[in-house]
Amino acid sequence: MSYDWISFTTDYGLEDGFVAACRGVIAQIAPRTQVIDVTHAVPPQRVRRGAAALAQTVNYLPESVHLAVVDPGVGTTRRNVVVVAGRGLLVGPDNGLLLPAAEALGGVFDAFELVNPELRLRTVSATFHGRDIFAPAAAHLALGVPPEEFGPPVHDLVRLPDPMVAVLPGKLVSEVLTVDHFGNIQFAAKFGDLTTASIIGTATVHCGPRALKVAIGRTFADVPTGKAVLFEDSAGRLALAINGGSAAAVLGQSIQECTITSSPTAS
Amino acid sequence: MSYDWISFTTDYGLEDGFVAACRGVIAQIAPRTQVIDVTHAVPPQRVRRGAAALAQTVNYLPESVHLAVVDPGVGTTRRNVVVVAGRGLLVGPDNGLLLPAAEALGGVFDAFELVNPELRLRTVSATFHGRDIFAPAAAHLALGVPPEEFGPPVHDLVRLPDPMVAVLPGKLVSEVLTVDHFGNIQFAAKFGDLTTASIIGTATVHCGPRALKVAIGRTFADVPTGKAVLFEDSAGRLALAINGGSAAAVLGQSIQECTITSSPTAS
Amino acid sequence: MSYDWISFTTDYGLEDGFVAACRGVIAQIAPRTQVIDVTHAVPPQRVRRGAAALAQTVNYLPESVHLAVVDPGVGTTRRNVVVVAGRGLLVGPDNGLLLPAAEALGGVFDAFELVNPELRLRTVSATFHGRDIFAPAAAHLALGVPPEEFGPPVHDLVRLPDPMVAVLPGKLVSEVLTVDHFGNIQFAAKFGDLTTASIIGTATVHCGPRALKVAIGRTFADVPTGKAVLFEDSAGRLALAINGGSAAAVLGQSIQECTITSSPTAS
Repeated sequence: MSYDWISFTTDYGLEDGFVAACRGVIAQIAPRTQVIDVTHAVPPQRVRRGAAALAQTVNYLPESVHLAVVDPGVGTTRRNVVVVAGRGLLVGPDNGLLLPAAEALGGVFDAFELVNPELRLRTVSATFHGRDIFAPAAAHLALGVPPEEFGPPVHDLVRLPDPMVAVLPGKLVSEVLTVDHFGNIQFAAKFGDLTTASIIGTATVHCGPRALKVAIGRTFADVPTGKAVLFEDSAGRLALAINGGSAAAVLGQSIQECTITSSPTAS
Repeated sequence: MSYDWISFTTDYGLEDGFVAACRGVIAQIAPRTQVIDVTHAVPPQRVRRGAAALAQTVNYLPESVHLAVVDPGVGTTRRNVVVVAGRGLLVGPDNGLLLPAAEALGGVFDAFELVNPELRLRTVSATFHGRDIFAPAAAHLALGVPPEEFGPPVHDLVRLPDPMVAVLPGKLVSEVLTVDHFGNIQFAAKFGDLTTASIIGTATVHCGPRALKVAIGRTFADVPTGKAVLFEDSAGRLALAINGGSAAAVLGQSIQECTITSSPTAS
Repeated sequence: MSYDWISFTTDYGLEDGFVAACRGVIAQIAPRTQVIDVTHAVPPQRVRRGAAALAQTVNYLPESVHLAVVDPGVGTTRRNVVVVAGRGLLVGPDNGLLLPAAEALGGVFDAFELVNPELRLRTVSATFHGRDIFAPAAAHLALGVPPEEFGPPVHDLVRLPDPMVAVLPGKLVSEVLTVDHFGNIQFAAKFGDLTTASIIGTATVHCGPRALKVAIGRTFADVPTGKAVLFEDSAGRLALAINGGSAAAVLGQSIQECTITSSPTAS
């Protein structure tokens, strides 16, 4: 089976030629395969953030080989893998990055280690496996090379711990999953968890030392400019926005976890 | 009529998979249509900045469907529209974003509301119409679906107020249109407005509390390094640059309006 | 000879439609030619940084026309050129930007000035030669227009001075070539220069007023999190990283030159 599309997710940034080198390697092996960049601005080495960005995007992409590299362990003994999902393939380091997307794509059917020296660049650097191992693998997979030709099967893929969500009466505690370009804060909790926790109408969000009174709504514009709203975001998660502003600027860009309570408390 | 190209302008940023989700939706509907990104770094929800970036670019693009989303009112009653221009189509929210580009493309010939449920994704979120409504519309339009199939005609498109420019004897007051990557400040005024205002040779630019003595020239390099120059920029507008430096860093990144006077005054 | 690929490197940033205008010009002349962006985030007008990014990428790209514009002298008498390299063509300003890449591609075989008015846009602005001269040239070259049709041969291409590297007993002084997205510092020196300088095992890196004790290793992960390591980077240069951190954040983002000594000194 071959693929017309490769999706591409990294923490390489766009300041250097790193992304271009990978695309060039793909272009030389599979010149007719098209590449869609998911993002190259995953915060450096934040595997969980890259995993969330990819998982929330894959179901809107055509059936693809998903190439993803957020790889703090490059050059160590961590494995390089191809994961066969229900719809599509995923290529990257075996550090948990690929699994949320694989689950969004119907689950993991198979996985193989990338060790076949004929399916990588002739010279492999210690620090740039994206260019030397993963991009060639994605290109060969797109052309129809079967995943099992890359190496032995892997049965113990590394999995990230599930993000923390606790639903209590009148109280919802959730890890922050992502913070987007607008400063909207996306929680690991689902929107429906608010109802389960009996939090209705208005709430207070505590993140570390800061707190914010919020309405519960459907979109940013349900509240006046400058006011905060909890809503179901486009990925189906609970999210916090300030209409015309940035929730992350108010609550802190690096918040990890928030507590949402039903009865407004002093902020 | 079908289109080989879609141009794509948003304030989504590149940190997340938002742009990729839209491109994936396009790829699934119109896999052979090529996409040119205009920019995805419009400052969040700054409709006028997005409108200027698109309007100044469209005449250098092949005939296209121009997909543009800067949309502070997503999820409210603001309409989604397709605009038929002299050359090409434009798709986005009806908030004034599309009209400067439509005028650059020969003017508005027609407009239709995007309400046909068969020409959007099956599930439409409250906050991501780029993915769920606009990208599918752009892809269907590129394939040749006639604009009138999307919904009823719109005769009262929302229009942004014209940017302020006042040409007086010895004095030119102008709104700032954009600030580019180099810190060059682009005014709504035309270069020729300087002559109309009898401002020749040198001038003083006042922006809020700050002022700068400037030469009037043809390009940055007409003045020594570190010196300021007023020139006609590549979009035909009056612009202010500092050779080898950033005018915006000196005058303030968020300036809205400046006054240019012919006789240098104390700065 | 024609080319299926154009690579594209600038300091234009992605905030505006500058890159898109160039791509649109290419699309109109050579609609089937594919474009790979190397980077558009070269620090403004830093010719040497753009030259390094391009030179370190070209050998991973398919044979291409390499379009590169970092051009502080736009609108002055500096020449516009096409350079014929061993493998591929390069188009841009004659300010040294193209030569390191040309050397990586097998050396300069020929060069011609871009003066033929039929091979540029009809109207040429004073400040945007990327759009008006270089992008059309790259597109025509990709279609197979011979380089000599653009103008007279150039025999005295402008060359940047070689970056400074001094290898002494127990001491290596090197200019910084680039700082990447992860804050890794890339030196002009080669990794092998450490051995030549008899610097083995551990070292001290002095950059201006700051100093750092470092291990010499193979990859970031050879040292504990938070520790510094000198290694051979994926471009074959000596580089300095902090595992899980940013060397540039510790030593200063704008460092120009460092001294590496074999015997650790007080930091």
